[in-house]
Amino acid sequence: MELPAAQPLFVLVRPQMGENIGAAARAMYNFGLTDMALVDPRDGWPNSRATALASGAGRVLDAAHLHQTTAEAIAGCSFVFATTARSRDMTNPVYTPEAAMAEAARRIGAGQRVGVLFGPERAGLENDDIIRANAIINVPVNPDFASLNLAQCVLLTAYEWRRQTVEVPGVSTHWAGQEPATQIEVEKLADHYEQRLDEAGFFFPPHKADPMKHSLRNLWSRLPLTAADVRTLHGVLRQLLRGRQG
Amino acid sequence: MELPAAQPLFVLVRPQMGENIGAAARAMYNFGLTDMALVDPRDGWPNSRATALASGAGRVLDAAHLHQTTAEAIAGCSFVFATTARSRDMTNPVYTPEAAMAEAARRIGAGQRVGVLFGPERAGLENDDIIRANAIINVPVNPDFASLNLAQCVLLTAYEWRRQTVEVPGVSTHWAGQEPATQIEVEKLADHYEQRLDEAGFFFPPHKADPMKHSLRNLWSRLPLTAADVRTLHGVLRQLLRGRQG
Repeated sequence: MELPAAQPLFVLVRPQMGENIGAAARAMYNFGLTDMALVDPRDGWPNSRATALASGAGRVLDAAHLHQTTAEAIAGCSFVFATTARSRDMTNPVYTPEAAMAEAARRIGAGQRVGVLFGPERAGLENDDIIRANAIINVPVNPDFASLNLAQCVLLTAYEWRRQTVEVPGVSTHWAGQEPATQIEVEKLADHYEQRLDEAGFFFPPHKADPMKHSLRNLWSRLPLTAADVRTLHGVLRQLLRGRQG
Repeated sequence: MELPAAQPLFVLVRPQMGENIGAAARAMYNFGLTDMALVDPRDGWPNSRATALASGAGRVLDAAHLHQTTAEAIAGCSFVFATTARSRDMTNPVYTPEAAMAEAARRIGAGQRVGVLFGPERAGLENDDIIRANAIINVPVNPDFASLNLAQCVLLTAYEWRRQTVEVPGVSTHWAGQEPATQIEVEKLADHYEQRLDEAGFFFPPHKADPMKHSLRNLWSRLPLTAADVRTLHGVLRQLLRGRQG
């Protein structure tokens, strides 16, 4: 018995140009997907132009399953999405790529096999293919300009698969060996500037000195300084004063 | 005084092939973005191959601003993201496309102008460009295969902009003129089948009749039937019985 794959099966239905099959393979592999099926590719299979375009993602093509019909390609799937740009006279629920890949992740996590159908370049999927699907994926594009090509549609769907399944912090900081400055380092920097500015007569008139000092402290605390930045700013101040005194 | 634009400015820094500029314009316009700047494109500007590739998105190219330097292109921006595939010895915070476009939407909503830098095809952005940015966008790709091209990087960023700013229901159903069946319609359908199956001796042995009826009711309620589906299923049952009796 075949174990369910831990990722969705991307099915290219009657793809035309080999280049687009290769580009779709690259798009998939960019987001870690390797499970591709091909239904009746126009120029036969294997296809040297697909291989050339796929370059580093050739392993996706090497492992691709070839089928004569859509029904055969999705025979083992218990849930199938069909990607389409148009709304049709269909009653299938329509998912965003995000909601679709969240649903796919849920089902695949429960051991189900999920397929996603992508149509040929020009015409898109035929109704005969779409009626085999449980649901539709529709990328919410600009209604005045919907021109996603095959590889782009694969790319966005694969991107959403990864987004739904791999936890990545929204914002992170690579300190690259540089530690963020500690509170005491920032405070000493603030002290250093405040003292020298005081000596230079910066806090004038006297009744505004306190709010001015307060603003400056606030400025230092607001900056995302590294320990190295703090050292640089100490050096800047020392050097400026040295120049002045010299 | 120029009013802040209600969308981010996408800046292509030293793009090489006209085709890629055209493809970037299409990618932007797919998600409703029209505000492009070009920094020192290799083959000059305008570029006929860019125009040919952009086709329906030519208006993005027509309105694009040409600059000699990155600094000039982003002069009016108060927050700038740099897209890059590599982590560098930089301390800029690193955003996912999602978090970046959420931040951009927040800032643009507050009247700020936000720019996004995209580097040349092969080399990506240089450090000289990146140090002008407030933050980095890094698409979380497969660490074993990161090969997004310029237009794909633009596409994913533009997709996230639209996702963060245009509300689209995750799942929707186009009933296409077909209403979902009402509860009473489904109940009458269940009654019809139960009665005919009872007459046909389906609920056997007698002590299992109730659980069998229960399961069948449950099956009907679970199906997302339209009113038309219900009529079809009544017809199916009548026709099957007519055949049997004839």
